[in-house]
Formats: sequence, structure tokens, C-alpha cells
Amino acid sequence: MKKIINSPETLVDEMLEGFVDLYADIVALVPGTRAIKRKDAPISGKVALITGGGSGHEPAHAGFVGPGMLTGAIAGDVFTAPSLEHTLELSKEVYSGEGILYIIKNYAGDILMFETAMEMLEDEGIKSDKIIVHDDIAVDEEDGEIKRRGVAGTVLIHKIVGAGADEGLSLNALKDLGEKAIARVRTYGMALSPCVIPARGEPNFTLGPDEIEIGIGIHGEPGVERVKMQDAHTLVRSMMDKLLKETVFADAKEVLLMVNGMGATPLMELFVVFKESISYLKELGIEVSRKMVGEYMTSLEMGGFSITLLKLDEELKHYIDYPTRAPAWRI
Amino acid sequence: MKKIINSPETLVDEMLEGFVDLYADIVALVPGTRAIKRKDAPISGKVALITGGGSGHEPAHAGFVGPGMLTGAIAGDVFTAPSLEHTLELSKEVYSGEGILYIIKNYAGDILMFETAMEMLEDEGIKSDKIIVHDDIAVDEEDGEIKRRGVAGTVLIHKIVGAGADEGLSLNALKDLGEKAIARVRTYGMALSPCVIPARGEPNFTLGPDEIEIGIGIHGEPGVERVKMQDAHTLVRSMMDKLLKETVFADAKEVLLMVNGMGATPLMELFVVFKESISYLKELGIEVSRKMVGEYMTSLEMGGFSITLLKLDEELKHYIDYPTRAPAWRI
Repeated sequence: MKKIINSPETLVDEMLEGFVDLYADIVALVPGTRAIKRKDAPISGKVALITGGGSGHEPAHAGFVGPGMLTGAIAGDVFTAPSLEHTLELSKEVYSGEGILYIIKNYAGDILMFETAMEMLEDEGIKSDKIIVHDDIAVDEEDGEIKRRGVAGTVLIHKIVGAGADEGLSLNALKDLGEKAIARVRTYGMALSPCVIPARGEPNFTLGPDEIEIGIGIHGEPGVERVKMQDAHTLVRSMMDKLLKETVFADAKEVLLMVNGMGATPLMELFVVFKESISYLKELGIEVSRKMVGEYMTSLEMGGFSITLLKLDEELKHYIDYPTRAPAWRI
Repeated sequence: MKKIINSPETLVDEMLEGFVDLYADIVALVPGTRAIKRKDAPISGKVALITGGGSGHEPAHAGFVGPGMLTGAIAGDVFTAPSLEHTLELSKEVYSGEGILYIIKNYAGDILMFETAMEMLEDEGIKSDKIIVHDDIAVDEEDGEIKRRGVAGTVLIHKIVGAGADEGLSLNALKDLGEKAIARVRTYGMALSPCVIPARGEPNFTLGPDEIEIGIGIHGEPGVERVKMQDAHTLVRSMMDKLLKETVFADAKEVLLMVNGMGATPLMELFVVFKESISYLKELGIEVSRKMVGEYMTSLEMGGFSITLLKLDEELKHYIDYPTRAPAWRI
């Protein structure tokens, strides 16, 4: 394993130390934790928005903390749920009296940790609620339960709910807004090459020189289908077809398109994927009025990309366009 | 070779098509060329700034075209000098009557092409001048000739001279400003893993599982020294020591620090490198008043990073802080 680190044990804390130094005008570390908060929190009269999850997805999630987006984010070890204790500390630190909304990616460990935190905070008189993001179409429902994972689309939820919180929406209204956006966002990803979790030291799967994985998640797990290498045109069209089969897009006239790099993919290849996506959506008569290309939700040094579509309406466009100072937001 | 492309032959044009679609409010393609220009060019009363070089360094250079930075950029094939014809077309397209300054990275092919363009334009009455960036300390002077390559520091030159041009400096004054900045900027880079030029299909060098290359350039060439894998602390200090041995930094009190990812390096590792750089410079009593972490000048999917230092003064800080709308500029 070749990584530019000191040790797997100190990696997350050292990364956060660098992060808060770089963006010291916007964020601060809650001392003794792996929690990042808006420097100006608590924000009087506003609901606090908190997310968190394993590290290894940078710039998510700390990069999306800032005015107009998240109030705080807690980092766990690489691909591991964050600490309950840090979540409690962060929550108390940023609570303004208007409640807390937790934005959780659909992973059992994350949900369990946040739900426990919510119960414990309730005992202390802190009101909170949660929304769960499950935008990854690779893994489907099982026994009536949603198994879909939360992936790159989560960043759009941070943006939309973050703008709503800044406008002063109530906890209930923010939960409704978040669930509306979650119902309209879908993501599909692929990998050319795996990533290596630092504490493990070897990849979770291997791929032949002409093989790719379709339907990957963001934790170094293999995809749902292994296929032969394809050209960008063919690959993007088949991934887009799968996305557009989702019922929510049956009547889609206007969408946001996000092409997200998984970590090791050159920007020039992301632009080719973007170009192929744009031309196909144009052919299909779907207007792409908001466009994003870059690294938003990565999986360490995995090679590959994901495509996210969000069905837009006037309300969602308003919140996507709303100003934010979160360091990693780009549109 | 696994790359998300259609073919090596169409890659650059398809990338540029995606790029101008994404940033259509700022840039446009000069039809029939691989030249990107500011949409609002020519800019009356202002010197035009043009750069160019091989593709594969994205977001450089097209990402730095925009108000407050470059007027135009020409892309060649991957790691190949751009076309003379496209350079001439772009130059005529953005020429406002105030002259053109070419910002050239120190590679023989690029210099030859731009110098030829300058001569041909002079015959048509278009006045131009050039500055040559050679910030890479890995390769040293030979027979009195500067062999140092232009690498990530070039982005800072685009920024400084771009701001000066926006303020209305003359061609001569801009050349002086650019040369002052070039004299104060130095870069040193390392690689964990090589990249693959699409038209070639295999890496230029191979590295053992515990080997790294120090002193790399940005064209997939090996470094000047092959060493055993080191922890981030040791690696950053030895690279920083080499940088700080440069005469220009002997009396440095205040610097800009840029930690640049080569393409495949996770952001979390760049933050560790940044944190190590910041603490070392602090120990040495050097103030880091401007800080950048991210991908600015890449080398396809090479794994590794470069560190750039710019010795600051009030004038350079003014130009670094000057507003720009170029899509890839972040500080």
C-alpha cells in the first residue's frame, strides 16, 4: 500500500487539522473531537444541520460545512461510522434552540449511531429529526426495506436543506423539503480500479486489465455487475438508461446533472462523461439546467465516476442557486 | 490501459466540448480549433494573455481562462505542444489592440511554437511579448541554460499577470510583473504511481510496491531520484528543505503555499501534506499567509503531489487576492 500518510491511526485527525487550517475563516474543529462546525455556530433562530459518516469521501462531508449548507459534520475512521460521543458534543455545540436535522446516508451503522444520539439529546431537551438519503440505484429494495445506499446525491441534499435552513425554515418544513429532494435524486456509479482502505492495506476487490465494475458504492465494495471495458459513449448511455428507468424521471423535463469523480479519475475523462451525458439527455428532450463536474463524494483513490440526476422544479432550483460559502460547493 | 474515453484521437476535442458547455457563461471555443477564449474577448483597452500546452494537466490551462485571469488557452494533444494555426487564430480573435503576452511553460516545443506565432503576428502588425515559467527545481541549469520546467507554479503566474492585465497594465509592465513573480516561485513534486498517455497505452516508468519518485515533472516522466516509501512527515520535510535551499527563499518571511495533487491522490492525503508543510514552515518562522490545496496542474492519473512556494510582498498579495471568475481558481 502506497499512501502519503503518517499512519492509518492518525490520518483522519491530521487531515482535519489541515482542513480547518485551510478554511479557518469558515470552519472550526470542536476541540478533542473529529467534528467540524461552522465557526459562527450556533446560528440564532436557525435549525442546525448535521451530517457525518466515515472518512475517505473528501471533500464530503466537512467541505460542505459553511453558511448556506451544513452547520456541522462528524468524521469517522475511513469508511466507518463516526463516534456517538463526538456527535453529541457537536450537536450541543451548534444547537441554537431551533432543533437539529440529521442528514444520514443509508448505512446501518450511521443510522444506529445518529438515532442513539437523537434519543440521548431528547432526554436533555434538544429536539431533533432526521432524513435518510438513499440515492444509489445499484442496490435495490429487499423485503420492502430500502437497501439503497446514500452516495453522491447526498451533497445535493446538503445544499438544498442548507439553503432552506438559512432562509429560516422550521425543523418540520426542512424535513419535508429534504424528503422531497431525496425522492427526486438518483445516482449510478462505476469503477475502473479499486481503492485501498489504509488500515487494511489491500484492495477489497481486483479487476482484470479489461474489466470494469458497474453499480459500485462509495466504500470500496465491488459493483453489482462486472463487464468488459467500454467506450465512454456506450458506457454513459447504458448507465443513463438505467437511471432514467426510475419512475421519478418518467415525466422529467428539467434536471440537474452531476458527474462525480471517485478519486483517481482525471478531470479530462470526467469532461468526456459529462459531454456524453449532456448530448444524450438533449437527444431525449430533457433540459439540463444545472450542471456539476468534479469531485464531490469520493472513495479514496478509486478510479471511476458516478452520474447523479435530480429532477428540478422552481423550489429546488431556488435552493440549488442560493448562495453558500461552504468550501467544496461548486456549480 | 483503462480510461473512460472514446478514443485517444477524439479525447481532447470531446473534453473541450464538455468544458465549454459547463462554463458557457465564461468561456467559448474558437470554432474549428482547440482554443478556449473568454466569451467577452477582445477586452477593449486591455492586454490579452494567452497560454497553452499539452492536454492532460486539467484544470490547467482552460480552467484558468476568465475575467481576472487568462484571455485564452490553446490545448494540444496529451503532453504535446499545441497547434501553431490554432494559436494564430486565437491570438487574432482576442487581440484588442493593446498587445498580447504569452505565458509559456519552459518546454522546447511550446517555446518554438509560440515564438513562431509571435513572429508571424508581428508581420500582421500585432505586437506581443512572452514570459517563460520555469518553477520546477528538480531539473537544474545546464551549461548556463535554464533547463527547469514550468509546472504548478504556472497557475500563480496566470493569476498574478491576469489581475495586472485586468487593472490595465501595459504589455511592458505585465512582462515585468510576470518576471518578478517567476523569479519568486518554486515547485517540487513526487510520484507514487505513473500515468498512462492515452495514445501510448502504457506507463512511461514503473515503480516497485515500496518505491516513490522524487523530482517528477508533469508529463509522466520519471523523477530525478527513486527512494523508498516514507511517511508524510519525513517526505514533506525533505522536499521542503530542498525548496528552501533556493536562494530566493533565503530571506523569505511570508509565502503562499500550494499543495497540488497530480491526479489520483485523495484529497485527504493532500490535507496531510498541507498540515505537515504548514507546521514545518511555522517552526522555521515563515508565515504562510495564502494557502491552496487541490488539483491545479495535474498529470493525468499520476499519484503524487507537488509543493509550490511563492515569496510574497504587498504587490503580489494584491494580485493574488484580486477577484477572478476563472472556473478553476480556488484559494
